[in-house]
Amino acid sequence: MTSEGPYRWQPLVERDGTTIAESPWGPDDEIGRLNWITAESQREVLSRIVPGPTYDLAVSLFMGMPAWLGAGDPKYDIWMTHTPAGTVVDDLNGVGPELSSIYSYCGDAVTMYTHTGTHLDMLNHFGFHGRFWNGWSPEKHLGSRHWTRGGPEKYPNIVARGVMLDIAALHEVECLPPSYTITQEDCTSAAEAQGVTLDKGDVVMIRTGRMRYWPDQEKYGTDAPGIGLEAAKFLCEEAGAMIIGSDNDSVEVDPCEPGTYFPVHSYMFATAGAPIIESLWLEDLAAAQVYEVAFLGGPLKMTGATGSPLRPMAIPLQPR
Amino acid sequence: MTSEGPYRWQPLVERDGTTIAESPWGPDDEIGRLNWITAESQREVLSRIVPGPTYDLAVSLFMGMPAWLGAGDPKYDIWMTHTPAGTVVDDLNGVGPELSSIYSYCGDAVTMYTHTGTHLDMLNHFGFHGRFWNGWSPEKHLGSRHWTRGGPEKYPNIVARGVMLDIAALHEVECLPPSYTITQEDCTSAAEAQGVTLDKGDVVMIRTGRMRYWPDQEKYGTDAPGIGLEAAKFLCEEAGAMIIGSDNDSVEVDPCEPGTYFPVHSYMFATAGAPIIESLWLEDLAAAQVYEVAFLGGPLKMTGATGSPLRPMAIPLQPR
Amino acid sequence: MTSEGPYRWQPLVERDGTTIAESPWGPDDEIGRLNWITAESQREVLSRIVPGPTYDLAVSLFMGMPAWLGAGDPKYDIWMTHTPAGTVVDDLNGVGPELSSIYSYCGDAVTMYTHTGTHLDMLNHFGFHGRFWNGWSPEKHLGSRHWTRGGPEKYPNIVARGVMLDIAALHEVECLPPSYTITQEDCTSAAEAQGVTLDKGDVVMIRTGRMRYWPDQEKYGTDAPGIGLEAAKFLCEEAGAMIIGSDNDSVEVDPCEPGTYFPVHSYMFATAGAPIIESLWLEDLAAAQVYEVAFLGGPLKMTGATGSPLRPMAIPLQPR
Amino acid sequence: MTSEGPYRWQPLVERDGTTIAESPWGPDDEIGRLNWITAESQREVLSRIVPGPTYDLAVSLFMGMPAWLGAGDPKYDIWMTHTPAGTVVDDLNGVGPELSSIYSYCGDAVTMYTHTGTHLDMLNHFGFHGRFWNGWSPEKHLGSRHWTRGGPEKYPNIVARGVMLDIAALHEVECLPPSYTITQEDCTSAAEAQGVTLDKGDVVMIRTGRMRYWPDQEKYGTDAPGIGLEAAKFLCEEAGAMIIGSDNDSVEVDPCEPGTYFPVHSYMFATAGAPIIESLWLEDLAAAQVYEVAFLGGPLKMTGATGSPLRPMAIPLQPR
Repeated sequence: MTSEGPYRWQPLVERDGTTIAESPWGPDDEIGRLNWITAESQREVLSRIVPGPTYDLAVSLFMGMPAWLGAGDPKYDIWMTHTPAGTVVDDLNGVGPELSSIYSYCGDAVTMYTHTGTHLDMLNHFGFHGRFWNGWSPEKHLGSRHWTRGGPEKYPNIVARGVMLDIAALHEVECLPPSYTITQEDCTSAAEAQGVTLDKGDVVMIRTGRMRYWPDQEKYGTDAPGIGLEAAKFLCEEAGAMIIGSDNDSVEVDPCEPGTYFPVHSYMFATAGAPIIESLWLEDLAAAQVYEVAFLGGPLKMTGATGSPLRPMAIPLQPR
Repeated sequence: MTSEGPYRWQPLVERDGTTIAESPWGPDDEIGRLNWITAESQREVLSRIVPGPTYDLAVSLFMGMPAWLGAGDPKYDIWMTHTPAGTVVDDLNGVGPELSSIYSYCGDAVTMYTHTGTHLDMLNHFGFHGRFWNGWSPEKHLGSRHWTRGGPEKYPNIVARGVMLDIAALHEVECLPPSYTITQEDCTSAAEAQGVTLDKGDVVMIRTGRMRYWPDQEKYGTDAPGIGLEAAKFLCEEAGAMIIGSDNDSVEVDPCEPGTYFPVHSYMFATAGAPIIESLWLEDLAAAQVYEVAFLGGPLKMTGATGSPLRPMAIPLQPR
Repeated sequence: MTSEGPYRWQPLVERDGTTIAESPWGPDDEIGRLNWITAESQREVLSRIVPGPTYDLAVSLFMGMPAWLGAGDPKYDIWMTHTPAGTVVDDLNGVGPELSSIYSYCGDAVTMYTHTGTHLDMLNHFGFHGRFWNGWSPEKHLGSRHWTRGGPEKYPNIVARGVMLDIAALHEVECLPPSYTITQEDCTSAAEAQGVTLDKGDVVMIRTGRMRYWPDQEKYGTDAPGIGLEAAKFLCEEAGAMIIGSDNDSVEVDPCEPGTYFPVHSYMFATAGAPIIESLWLEDLAAAQVYEVAFLGGPLKMTGATGSPLRPMAIPLQPR
Repeated sequence: MTSEGPYRWQPLVERDGTTIAESPWGPDDEIGRLNWITAESQREVLSRIVPGPTYDLAVSLFMGMPAWLGAGDPKYDIWMTHTPAGTVVDDLNGVGPELSSIYSYCGDAVTMYTHTGTHLDMLNHFGFHGRFWNGWSPEKHLGSRHWTRGGPEKYPNIVARGVMLDIAALHEVECLPPSYTITQEDCTSAAEAQGVTLDKGDVVMIRTGRMRYWPDQEKYGTDAPGIGLEAAKFLCEEAGAMIIGSDNDSVEVDPCEPGTYFPVHSYMFATAGAPIIESLWLEDLAAAQVYEVAFLGGPLKMTGATGSPLRPMAIPLQPR
């Protein structure tokens, strides 16, 4: 069912059972498995697309939207910087009220936690014991305002095979039960039921069904079903996933096991070198039973950020 | 050289030589020419892509980056909301210092003017005499925080033919002179020199060469060469452009003609119903002399915004 | 019990029972009753202070603090702009890591709704039918970013007699019941019980006892007891209050009467020309049974704002 | 001319000529010399005030205002969260358009560097070699969002004797020359010329004349005259200053000596335990030749901040 594997990297630091990997792409690597995106890998996936309608995989950003704000992060805010009537009064553009009455001008600004809406988690988002992917440390690489390593400005646009594993459909439910831990077995069974393989370099998209509750923050964001460490390790190390995404808000099951804190995040970034995508809109793919796609899109290149919104699209692939 | 045209819409309001168009897609239309994106239009462009490497058309966002901030808009700012060491001290995540010492946590937030970096200008960005595309008005459609019409959350992902017109190359310069007004003649000559046609539904990308100065704010952002009204009207009405983009910071020539204020913007949004993309990274396409591409990408769906960053990619097309 | 009154101003606009007053201080007036602060009024109050310890009337601002955010306003946020270790990494100050290692540098920034913590509400905060104190209108006086009339930058430092009316003590409760409407009778009874008069130009401080619940947002901010319109009119028109403050979060009773929306606010600003102070810390005055004080302090001069935090102090007055 | 002194504290850490002091007020002290504010000290200064008009010592905050933003801090921004017309459209308050048409509602929010306008610098703003006043360290006391030690929420309202030293007047200039270093000699000469002493516990206010250039950022903020280390040490150690303020933007001379970075800041906070006030408005005191005052006002209690705006007032004192 899966490709050649295993995809495990040499440890750089090991401590109390946790591993910071040495990037197989060298000491200067900042993007981990996204190094798998090459001219050849893009050729392969693009050569198989089915020309026609595309699927939008992103949710909308709006005031009051569901978001993981329990640790004090700012909510999504948008505000006007220029209004047609206000510009006539304040003349901020300096052209005088007459011209501003003719050419009506509007502008706005946003503030948001970088992990808002459909977004990519970069490898600098979580680490173990103060060390991060490829050995980065706050002492050497964290500025006052942002990381100097691992930001999305280093990421290529993502052009890769995407595989959607509809775990909710596998269990014949609209949405998996609260706090359900998705297993390796769930992943392989879903792939088999759907008739897809998992290949090295895939963007694996796990559908829990949670997006059915969107945008009800309470129902969407509490006790989400998601993958556990076992499934994450299988997908990264055996199946060769490049990225794991999900329609829930943190990919991994909530709450995590006692004595851990987002263990799948730390594992995926620091040990596996694989980014995460959260809050993917998979409902349209699920309705159309489209499981194998070209995943196209990239994070905003916000220098040094730990997360970045993106607006990916999916294009169905022809069977090999 | 161009397609069937003309692409002019019925006026809804006319005043002092300015026109607010009635959308040919009906009173509820919020996206103008992006209605041209259909299953069929996507099929056509996707069927011609050359599988292989893709081109990134977006610049990075970073503190101190060039931006159009003369009217008081906030600069791009990023700031940490969680640091590994800080989390051990403040325990904002509530799991205690021990767990936070093991699972090192980082987060950040951004504030930005929505018209920052490579971004799309929505049709609600500029109007004439307090009226906007399809008759929208602040009185009825502008909330305290954002528009209720015309935001990017209504926009499909853009999947369209893109044509790059390298006006700098046409004139055999690295960058067009300051304040140079690009004309219809420039556009048709460049297309001819490049051996490309302009078709209905294109994302027309005008290369001025200004990106050579990036990220020198002074040189990049002052007195930019860009299109004038004549070229904008030609591209929209005759050539059937869906979107006009450019590598400069406002598509249109700076400064604009005396007695006007971003006249190309108001024309394109209110009269033509065509969005704008600013600060496109076209240097790689130019170096490779790739002029005809699939343009793929969409704005972040920031509800009601007048601008939105995006990270588009280009894939070369096979000749028809 | 009260001074000469009545203190009612000529109507400029009347509509459906609401009144926008014409300022008795002329068409350019922006501060209403604060015009009562003169050299003479300051002399009078300062001549009676009891030298000795002062009382702090302000609460702390902190992340997660109680605030009136139900209408989408941003919460109080603070974030680091410079950290000692980060500055060594990012060199944002440009002096190099060596100097930054010696001179350890820290900085931070805040975002807040202007009506956060102990704050003054300016006269431009509420009006009737789109008209405000002295006839201001958004069309003429509201810019894109802020009002051009009535901001705290026009306000003098407040130096005035303050009278605390301990309505909770009057009713012998720790805190008035939820949604209790404080009446004129409550105000006059409390003044009598406390042995104080109400004079023209006073900062009247109403103690409901709600601050006992601080900082429990749920208990502090829901269904607060507060003054009703009758008491507000009495205090402004008969007693000559210059400002009305309270220890609750909106001075007036919550919820307000059906068919109204913060009616005391609109009345006080547009009709009476009297500002409001919210979330005053009156617990120390109450514990010491100090009722008559010099009220000293002024809002931050945030140009054009509708609200502004302040940190007032109280100094007991000698009996006349 | 000065009081008993010297006011030097025991070193806790000494390294390469720099000293972190052990607070004489004990290991839990967070406010340094502000411990000198007692019931008795307040009684003394308040007993000498001259009842009558007061002086406002604060500048206005406004968009585009002068500020020290060279290290990437955000400018002062204010923006509307509620407009009368917008509220009718968006109904963010949830009461419906009818009520919002009657009760016209306005709100706004601000973002600012905490060191903006007239503001206090807390002791956690600068240290030496990663250690701060009383031994605080980022490792133990700096959270992700703010310090847990030394914030203005711990500061009492300031009620103290203030002495203005008009160094510009001493030199008979409107403003001291660019980069002029104010000396101990300047301070003692000005005090003598003005007929005032310097006492333990004073808020010493140094007038350079720079405020004459306000709000011209270029002229106000570049190469400011200010005190040097010698004067700072004299004022703190010999004269017993509690706080040193100035009308310039950083109290100390700009640029500082080669091989240093704001050495007066680090000295005053870490070694002397004395806060700083910047951008004081001293023009009215200077015009009135009022040199000895009661300084009244306190910083906004923004928990953990390194700086905080305040709006102080001055009341002339009767000669002893």
